[in-house]
Amino acid sequence: MQSFEFNNPTKIIFGLDQENKVGKEIAPYSRKILLHYGGGSIKMNGLYDRVVAALKDEGIEFVELGGVQPNPRLSLVREGVDICKAQGLSFVLAVGGGSVIDSAKAIALGALYEGDVWDFYTGKETPAAALPVGTILTIPAAGSESSTGSVITNDDGQWKRPVNSDLLYPKFSILNPALAFSLPKYQIGCGATDILAHLMERYFTNVEHVEFTDRLIEATMKTVLHNVPKILDNHTDYDAWAEVMWAGTIAHNNLLNQGRVGDWGSHDIEHEISGIYDVAHGAGLAVVFPAWMKYVHKHDLDRFVQFAVRVFNVEQDFKDKEETALRGIRALEEFLMRIGMQVRLSGLGILDDRLHEMARKGTQNDTITLGNFVPLGEKDVYEILRLAI
Amino acid sequence: MQSFEFNNPTKIIFGLDQENKVGKEIAPYSRKILLHYGGGSIKMNGLYDRVVAALKDEGIEFVELGGVQPNPRLSLVREGVDICKAQGLSFVLAVGGGSVIDSAKAIALGALYEGDVWDFYTGKETPAAALPVGTILTIPAAGSESSTGSVITNDDGQWKRPVNSDLLYPKFSILNPALAFSLPKYQIGCGATDILAHLMERYFTNVEHVEFTDRLIEATMKTVLHNVPKILDNHTDYDAWAEVMWAGTIAHNNLLNQGRVGDWGSHDIEHEISGIYDVAHGAGLAVVFPAWMKYVHKHDLDRFVQFAVRVFNVEQDFKDKEETALRGIRALEEFLMRIGMQVRLSGLGILDDRLHEMARKGTQNDTITLGNFVPLGEKDVYEILRLAI
Repeated sequence: MQSFEFNNPTKIIFGLDQENKVGKEIAPYSRKILLHYGGGSIKMNGLYDRVVAALKDEGIEFVELGGVQPNPRLSLVREGVDICKAQGLSFVLAVGGGSVIDSAKAIALGALYEGDVWDFYTGKETPAAALPVGTILTIPAAGSESSTGSVITNDDGQWKRPVNSDLLYPKFSILNPALAFSLPKYQIGCGATDILAHLMERYFTNVEHVEFTDRLIEATMKTVLHNVPKILDNHTDYDAWAEVMWAGTIAHNNLLNQGRVGDWGSHDIEHEISGIYDVAHGAGLAVVFPAWMKYVHKHDLDRFVQFAVRVFNVEQDFKDKEETALRGIRALEEFLMRIGMQVRLSGLGILDDRLHEMARKGTQNDTITLGNFVPLGEKDVYEILRLAI
Repeated sequence: MQSFEFNNPTKIIFGLDQENKVGKEIAPYSRKILLHYGGGSIKMNGLYDRVVAALKDEGIEFVELGGVQPNPRLSLVREGVDICKAQGLSFVLAVGGGSVIDSAKAIALGALYEGDVWDFYTGKETPAAALPVGTILTIPAAGSESSTGSVITNDDGQWKRPVNSDLLYPKFSILNPALAFSLPKYQIGCGATDILAHLMERYFTNVEHVEFTDRLIEATMKTVLHNVPKILDNHTDYDAWAEVMWAGTIAHNNLLNQGRVGDWGSHDIEHEISGIYDVAHGAGLAVVFPAWMKYVHKHDLDRFVQFAVRVFNVEQDFKDKEETALRGIRALEEFLMRIGMQVRLSGLGILDDRLHEMARKGTQNDTITLGNFVPLGEKDVYEILRLAI
């Protein structure tokens, strides 16, 4: 286990109707906020009205900015930054899923920065200040509600880039599992895939003696594997949603990567796919992760055997590690298909004509490697994309 | 799952040599502190000198108060409170195990209170303010390094009572597994028992749909079960100590009780034993917990079967739940004996002459019940103590 410092300050407020507390939670921070959301579903299902009522109860003024789309765009972030600066807003409330939250975090960074907010995503600048952010989560998936990360897509250049900073931990996140009842099946599958991917990125590490976090990750994965099919059978199963929503937050709140180094190569590769094709992040991950596993599993067969046996209850072949490892990868694919995901690029309608381009772009012309478990150069990324076709 | 709010603000600083950061961590809070510790082993092993050097590096003045003993005494707490008040100290640094930390938290409460600090432990007063506390942990066991609790024993009346308040979360806790290398075998066993007990108190709940936290608790227990025997074989196994130390903190930092209601009856009963006989807390728990399980297991056989199968890998008898449940309890006893614990009061040299007295005192003459899984009256507590003889 490596040395670490861990201090996640996000206050989690979990349960039915908890969104009605949002005004009280914001009041210590601000009297005039940006209310940021997505495509308007929150106006149809009544959530918007409840949030507005809770803000008004506390006398908190707000300016609205809706319209966040999946793979949230830099142009809307810039618009939010301008609004915050022009109107002196001092808090950003995100009501939605990971895209809305990531967009809100970007706005919070930009609002206290003189230059262009994209500088933080290109690595030109390191975040030094950010407005406080709060969230009301409607989609268990990205884990952004209790994480340090934000991923934004530049509309112009098809670039999708992340930034990480302790400044981006939300002050609070309200998690009401019932807000997820109305999600379409496909979005449930994409969200579950994203959660599993966050766990697997952390799981595949070269750091030794990480038994406790291994077991916590396995426990979190098993919870997702057990409960997502329940949700797909019954969209209003509050108890199953509660398990998945809480698991999705823990999967990405940095508890499960303490003392170890995760991989994150699959996320990087996926960013190239969804940057160009605008598929959902989870949809891209469902394709990339099994292909990545097939490409790298020989690097540490023991770890893949443990994954197969402990997470997917694969019957271990004690004489043939690779057989067991491959069955684990196959079990992952079968689970993803069962929850409605495609596990090949072709299933997403993506042809093989831009694989070289994605491999080149992702590795910046083979000048950087992706991932830590096995550092991947341009040729490796290309081979993984080939396996994903 | 029940609704909950979770916000543990304790910063964890984990790894070799991390105690050298203690001055820097305190500096934002205070320039003049109480340095609180136990029996002087920290002076023998060099830790005291490193802490003093780190404080001096930051120009932090300190007043010393050593002498904390297991089952920390109210008299020393009062002494610490007086020192803090008289000398205007504004931070309490605990260097030691759970007893030192609990004593430091009590001093932190008393220092900002006009009356007698014992008022918080009798329930006469609710904590409204406390000095900030930091810790350097030397014994993985009590979990007090990242918890809201403090347990103090009144020297005069043999009363051992807890208080809980969010004010008592330490600001930071430094966890260096190597600081535990010199612990004697018996203290390792007591500490491991305490950690397991914190997990089992949370595990046995009547709240339904708590799969995720069930699995996290099971993962934490399995980590302890796997690594404590390694430590007993090799006291300087850093990697095994790291697993146990981090597991011990997570076991009690409130993550694993979110959305559920723990039992805590065994802890209450144990407080009566160690209040009178001054046995180590872990030693008392090793006796009480199996007896409690034998008394209450029929209340929810399914949960005891899950415990047996998932935590202790008991081969399930699908036709006989009780058989499986009892094998799980037996497996717990066997593990405790393997790590050097006695599992009967007689093994601790305690006779059966004061069982009625403990049952009466613990239930305040049968006017309150202990525990939540099965609320226990005076007669129940007596029967459990009888089973423990």
